[in-house]
Amino acid sequence: MSTSIEKEMVLPENEVENIKLLSSIEDAHGGVTVEMKEPMDSKLFASMLGSSLLYWIQQKKRGVWIKLPIEFSNLVEPTVKEGFRYHHAESDYLMLVKWIPETSATLPANASHRVGIGAFVMNDKGEVLVVQERRGRFKGTNVWKLPTGTVEEGEDICMTAIREVKEETGVDTEFVKVLAFRQSHQSFFRKSDLFFVCMLRPRSFEIQKQDSEIEAAQIRIFIVFNLFLFFLQWMRAEDYAAQPFNQKNEIFKNVAGICLTKAKKDYTGFSTMSSTTSSGKRTYMYFNNRDFEPSAEH
Amino acid sequence: MSTSIEKEMVLPENEVENIKLLSSIEDAHGGVTVEMKEPMDSKLFASMLGSSLLYWIQQKKRGVWIKLPIEFSNLVEPTVKEGFRYHHAESDYLMLVKWIPETSATLPANASHRVGIGAFVMNDKGEVLVVQERRGRFKGTNVWKLPTGTVEEGEDICMTAIREVKEETGVDTEFVKVLAFRQSHQSFFRKSDLFFVCMLRPRSFEIQKQDSEIEAAQIRIFIVFNLFLFFLQWMRAEDYAAQPFNQKNEIFKNVAGICLTKAKKDYTGFSTMSSTTSSGKRTYMYFNNRDFEPSAEH
Repeated sequence: MSTSIEKEMVLPENEVENIKLLSSIEDAHGGVTVEMKEPMDSKLFASMLGSSLLYWIQQKKRGVWIKLPIEFSNLVEPTVKEGFRYHHAESDYLMLVKWIPETSATLPANASHRVGIGAFVMNDKGEVLVVQERRGRFKGTNVWKLPTGTVEEGEDICMTAIREVKEETGVDTEFVKVLAFRQSHQSFFRKSDLFFVCMLRPRSFEIQKQDSEIEAAQIRIFIVFNLFLFFLQWMRAEDYAAQPFNQKNEIFKNVAGICLTKAKKDYTGFSTMSSTTSSGKRTYMYFNNRDFEPSAEH
Repeated sequence: MSTSIEKEMVLPENEVENIKLLSSIEDAHGGVTVEMKEPMDSKLFASMLGSSLLYWIQQKKRGVWIKLPIEFSNLVEPTVKEGFRYHHAESDYLMLVKWIPETSATLPANASHRVGIGAFVMNDKGEVLVVQERRGRFKGTNVWKLPTGTVEEGEDICMTAIREVKEETGVDTEFVKVLAFRQSHQSFFRKSDLFFVCMLRPRSFEIQKQDSEIEAAQIRIFIVFNLFLFFLQWMRAEDYAAQPFNQKNEIFKNVAGICLTKAKKDYTGFSTMSSTTSSGKRTYMYFNNRDFEPSAEH
């Protein structure tokens, strides 16, 4: 949803004199947004919100958005009392919305998915970079697993894979392909997960030299900035896939199978291409670039 | 060792009898969740929350979650005053959280992405099912576009594609492959979008018979349940890709190019396979099943 066309609401002179309204900005979809920036007494706010709503109804506005920073939690109750619903929240604010028209609402949906990655980093000896985490689901299982992590706000999937490998192992990589992805539901509360298996390759010869030092010690202990311990090693791809855990669990078996297939022979995944949208934003498209070349005539 | 601190937190017997604590359930991560189900006076709630927090600190709890249905918006302010932050919200509730330990929080991230689909439905004459929407971004542009839509709560991407095609065109389809996907940021507020281009095929001969009636009229008006109008037709894949809009916009040009490649020759995307997780949930994995067969030895 774009709010690029925004303008300050203008009121007829006489109304401004009599009634104090909440200041708002119009959006491109016939709605208005109020972003509270100063503290306000909840009774005064309730009175101004009531007057503002009458004005917005008269102006035939559609969606009314009210953004309340967490410091102004005293204004949540009066907003809800005027018929607003919650739309979404981040740690520092709550967004409420009210749909004015009689017709069914066409408000944008809230975010529904968390996005995570698993990183399959293979060197030119056919070895996979694996870690043992000291906490979480795999604690104490002795399973060697791929580095994993969660996409941060505004982060591209391919960049998350590079960042997480660096944070968990210290190894610099470049992104190669998305090999597969998995969607699962009710991962936390009513939200869903999308998990992308990404292939990467170690980035420089210097890194590979450092890797052979790791290989000498077989298993290295890596301390990341937040003091969690990771054990890490380069492991033969066959040995990674053959771990009992990977063979018993259907999903892990398939992820390992795909990685092993990629290690041994051809497996075509999705590569990335960066594009710029009509509104000037950069986005990444992921597709099979063996079968489709964007530069070719079509 | 830390007995002096603990002693301060221990409530004397007589106080335990007098003070009512909020009822909570423990989670698997050393935390507790309070789900408010009955209305409560905000002052009484504030007092009970304060006592409960002392108890949870003494019990060395980690994350404390408080779920407030929108009916109990009077309890938001007292919760925030106790140092809770917002975690997420849906239209009918707000979830707040407080991390008790001194160490950095390991709370699960909020959902960050909306997920949408574009449906590439091709019949055996090499024609694509396209629509013109009467509202939204493409209103008045005369662009024939693929049916699109948003993944609903708990819905699988492949099912969203089938549902949206049915709702926008009345055509029954079956899912074939994910051909490509795109990630973009700040689509609404601070949230990101993932958009999957899905290939589907019309499902039965009966539908194809009905399609030839549509073809006779060339363009049909379709009224969906919520009274929006869609124009729809089957269009030669080349004509779809050749539309000026698809040629001018880099992203649309590539999506059209991938669809045209798929129409003319081989383009390998990701197929689905349904699996069951160790906790008994069904999930879909999307991967290249031409290069990897789950049943094969690996």
